[in-house]
Amino acid sequence: MKKPSLRHRLHEIIYEADTPAGKVFDIVLLILIVLSVVLVMLESVSSIGLAYAALLNQLEWGITIVFSLEYIARILVVKKPWKYITSFFGIIDLLSLLPKYISFFFMGSGSLVALRALRLLRVFRILKLSRYIGESNFLMTALWASRVKIGVFLFAVIILCIIFGTIMYLVEGEANGFTSIPRGIYWCIVTLTTVGYGDIAPMTSLGRFIASIIMILGYGIIAVPTGIVTSEMTQQHKNPDTNTQACPSCMNETHLDDAVYCHNCGNQLNETT
Amino acid sequence: MKKPSLRHRLHEIIYEADTPAGKVFDIVLLILIVLSVVLVMLESVSSIGLAYAALLNQLEWGITIVFSLEYIARILVVKKPWKYITSFFGIIDLLSLLPKYISFFFMGSGSLVALRALRLLRVFRILKLSRYIGESNFLMTALWASRVKIGVFLFAVIILCIIFGTIMYLVEGEANGFTSIPRGIYWCIVTLTTVGYGDIAPMTSLGRFIASIIMILGYGIIAVPTGIVTSEMTQQHKNPDTNTQACPSCMNETHLDDAVYCHNCGNQLNETT
Amino acid sequence: MKKPSLRHRLHEIIYEADTPAGKVFDIVLLILIVLSVVLVMLESVSSIGLAYAALLNQLEWGITIVFSLEYIARILVVKKPWKYITSFFGIIDLLSLLPKYISFFFMGSGSLVALRALRLLRVFRILKLSRYIGESNFLMTALWASRVKIGVFLFAVIILCIIFGTIMYLVEGEANGFTSIPRGIYWCIVTLTTVGYGDIAPMTSLGRFIASIIMILGYGIIAVPTGIVTSEMTQQHKNPDTNTQACPSCMNETHLDDAVYCHNCGNQLNETT
Amino acid sequence: MKKPSLRHRLHEIIYEADTPAGKVFDIVLLILIVLSVVLVMLESVSSIGLAYAALLNQLEWGITIVFSLEYIARILVVKKPWKYITSFFGIIDLLSLLPKYISFFFMGSGSLVALRALRLLRVFRILKLSRYIGESNFLMTALWASRVKIGVFLFAVIILCIIFGTIMYLVEGEANGFTSIPRGIYWCIVTLTTVGYGDIAPMTSLGRFIASIIMILGYGIIAVPTGIVTSEMTQQHKNPDTNTQACPSCMNETHLDDAVYCHNCGNQLNETT
Repeated sequence: MKKPSLRHRLHEIIYEADTPAGKVFDIVLLILIVLSVVLVMLESVSSIGLAYAALLNQLEWGITIVFSLEYIARILVVKKPWKYITSFFGIIDLLSLLPKYISFFFMGSGSLVALRALRLLRVFRILKLSRYIGESNFLMTALWASRVKIGVFLFAVIILCIIFGTIMYLVEGEANGFTSIPRGIYWCIVTLTTVGYGDIAPMTSLGRFIASIIMILGYGIIAVPTGIVTSEMTQQHKNPDTNTQACPSCMNETHLDDAVYCHNCGNQLNETT
Repeated sequence: MKKPSLRHRLHEIIYEADTPAGKVFDIVLLILIVLSVVLVMLESVSSIGLAYAALLNQLEWGITIVFSLEYIARILVVKKPWKYITSFFGIIDLLSLLPKYISFFFMGSGSLVALRALRLLRVFRILKLSRYIGESNFLMTALWASRVKIGVFLFAVIILCIIFGTIMYLVEGEANGFTSIPRGIYWCIVTLTTVGYGDIAPMTSLGRFIASIIMILGYGIIAVPTGIVTSEMTQQHKNPDTNTQACPSCMNETHLDDAVYCHNCGNQLNETT
Repeated sequence: MKKPSLRHRLHEIIYEADTPAGKVFDIVLLILIVLSVVLVMLESVSSIGLAYAALLNQLEWGITIVFSLEYIARILVVKKPWKYITSFFGIIDLLSLLPKYISFFFMGSGSLVALRALRLLRVFRILKLSRYIGESNFLMTALWASRVKIGVFLFAVIILCIIFGTIMYLVEGEANGFTSIPRGIYWCIVTLTTVGYGDIAPMTSLGRFIASIIMILGYGIIAVPTGIVTSEMTQQHKNPDTNTQACPSCMNETHLDDAVYCHNCGNQLNETT
Repeated sequence: MKKPSLRHRLHEIIYEADTPAGKVFDIVLLILIVLSVVLVMLESVSSIGLAYAALLNQLEWGITIVFSLEYIARILVVKKPWKYITSFFGIIDLLSLLPKYISFFFMGSGSLVALRALRLLRVFRILKLSRYIGESNFLMTALWASRVKIGVFLFAVIILCIIFGTIMYLVEGEANGFTSIPRGIYWCIVTLTTVGYGDIAPMTSLGRFIASIIMILGYGIIAVPTGIVTSEMTQQHKNPDTNTQACPSCMNETHLDDAVYCHNCGNQLNETT
């Protein structure tokens, strides 16, 4: 048996999380990602950003260099580098490096904060941690299975908001903060979703009456997405539990996961993995 | 086989979405509807409405003429024109045309915004898109099946709001914004539905104590509509379980998954896979 | 067969809703109750209360006299008058009459609005309408079956609010509106239940961080009462559907409600009522 | 049969709730705990705290002495005193006594309110009341079984808030209250959880558009934790269905309701009623 090459070993460390070295790599990367996110946040707080500007800058450079090395390593190690570079995470990886290097040439380019914000997308990497995959798959499958229903529901909500927003614009008028239909719709979304900022609130009696209807509607309507997702999840919950094996004698298919004998005819069931 | 008449073909295009031409027609109409809704919105934003008044007016005329042609085509093509004209969508179609023509004769009639708002109702048309029908039927059936329960619940909520609104009016008084019982009820709905604008908020200790009770009540009560709709949906989800086989003798279709004999006529059911 | 006495007939009309006359009586009473509630509301709106004082007073007298006659009739007709008088509805009925008569002797006694508010409790009468009983029983049974669980949950919520409210009082201090622990608790309830008035809001960074935790907690915790009620309702939903009859031959108990033959052995099932 | 020693009897009274004396002890303790919590609250209300300072101080001393005696009794009575002292409730018990004694030596040490707040944790004691244990176990098991799913969900919510908070910081800017990324994230949590204080609210059109998306997202996302907990609870509700019979041969207790043979050892199960 050939000893695995360095490139193969590096591939294992960087792209997989099964080996101890791979796990350490993932955790170090995770910490660096969180640290870089915290740095971006602290920099935005003006009092901290000004007082510790030099320190933050140095830390930022350190993280950027480590991420640069990681990016180069990923390209060198993978078999199809171009596929990685053009993948979602490849683009994110690159975009999380660029802002710092660009800022080296163009000082004070504040709009690059936007680009730097993309570094946050690296956070999604940790979703790869294997132990959660089974569970998040469960969530994703439930949401995916009910996507059309949720789509219909959201569509109905938006139509409701457009109609009620227009009505409130007509009823309340510009004097009470409903200066345009889009603002009326914005207010209606704020109300229907039970957020309720209070920056715009109805002032007339009729407006308050309509607002009450919208609120009760929003209070009742929230049951719909909940019902959709819950019934989908209950469905999925039920399936894995039984139905995994059929009795070879009577074809009964409702066996518990750990059943050894058929509960219907008493015959032994096939071995399960 | 006779070639279908022009009228028959037009009927297929306008009223059905199964043929390619019918789909194109539906999509073009959908885009026009969305565009006309956006136009109404933009017009209401005073800065845009004034600057681009002429352009908006021209676009509005264009859409109105297209909708007029569609309206006439629908009347000509359908077998019972009067039935269409007096139908819900027939009235909506007409109402979405009238405001523009009326505005031609009576300039500056601002209250016609109300009529123009009806054009938004045309948006409901897209609900006809066939692929969503199965799913929205599912939602509608679940909501319809639980209509009495939801009615009882909403009725209880309104009674609660009337009682607590009156109590708060007595406790807080006019000095703290609770100027009348209807306003107290409005505040109670805002609180119970967890919207919470904050335009009216209790100021006295007793008022805040009662408000806390209302909030916790509202927080707990939201479980009720959710429970109703969810259990109804789970129920419907399960029903397909009983619909997989039809009795070869009496055609009854509601059999349990493990049924061997028809529960209606006693005949043996076909083997299931 | 003896002709029923007038008293017996009146009893049927007043206390039951099965006969046409009883239904009419209930509906007339319902309308009067709603009307009297609306009158109380309108009176509280100062602009209306002053302008139409005389009219409102006359209508109020009219309703009070009708309710007085109803009260007397109920006492005369019922077999055990004292039991009615001391019952919940008997007390409500009396309390809804008294304020007007008292106001006749003591003019301008504003605090009687409180007593008049009790008239609202008459609204609960309509819950007696027979057709809703089956459904509201369903709700009540589900809520009653989960009362201990909901009690434990509400208890946990209140403890959480006391602890977090005290912490916020310590963190934010009196300068930021958290003038006492009760107010901190009030703020915490407002936040945890996702009402969020905004009359008191955290100002310090630490306070906002804790507030964020409370909000996410409240957002997640709402799943608990919903889960309790939903699983209870789903449970109840399931029971009536099957299990109502057992096959006299094979004792199988999972039959659909309308099953005539056993789906397991093909034997005929017993007649159901 | 030996008469139980005083120490044994005291142990029964203090640590158990099965005997009448034990129940009385628990209830008295419960009342004292609630009273001490109310005292801490009242003291914090400046108007009451100043007017009744002497009375509150005396009551506080009374409760502290009773709790001290209880603490000493608990140590003397229990077999392994050190285990109790270092246990969660042992530390809480001690911490609820210390502040008052410390305040005796160091007058006016306001920060001890923090320590005194720990006395609130004594409230958790009542969770020991035996009758609720079965029910709260149910809740705990459901929450514990779905801890990974809820963890993944909360993680996704936090990532969403970081990303949208940063975007809103860029879009709205410091002029509209979004003075830093952490504040943007705070605002995003307030919005996504549908709390909506309104202390920070978007002012620009683009900001309001993004806010609308966040609100609808938050309105829809709330279905996920609800779905998780509900399906878990429904699952647990259902398990008793499989627990009604035990195999007479292997004692396995997880049989489906209609099982005839044990799915574990193939033996025939007992007839069920």
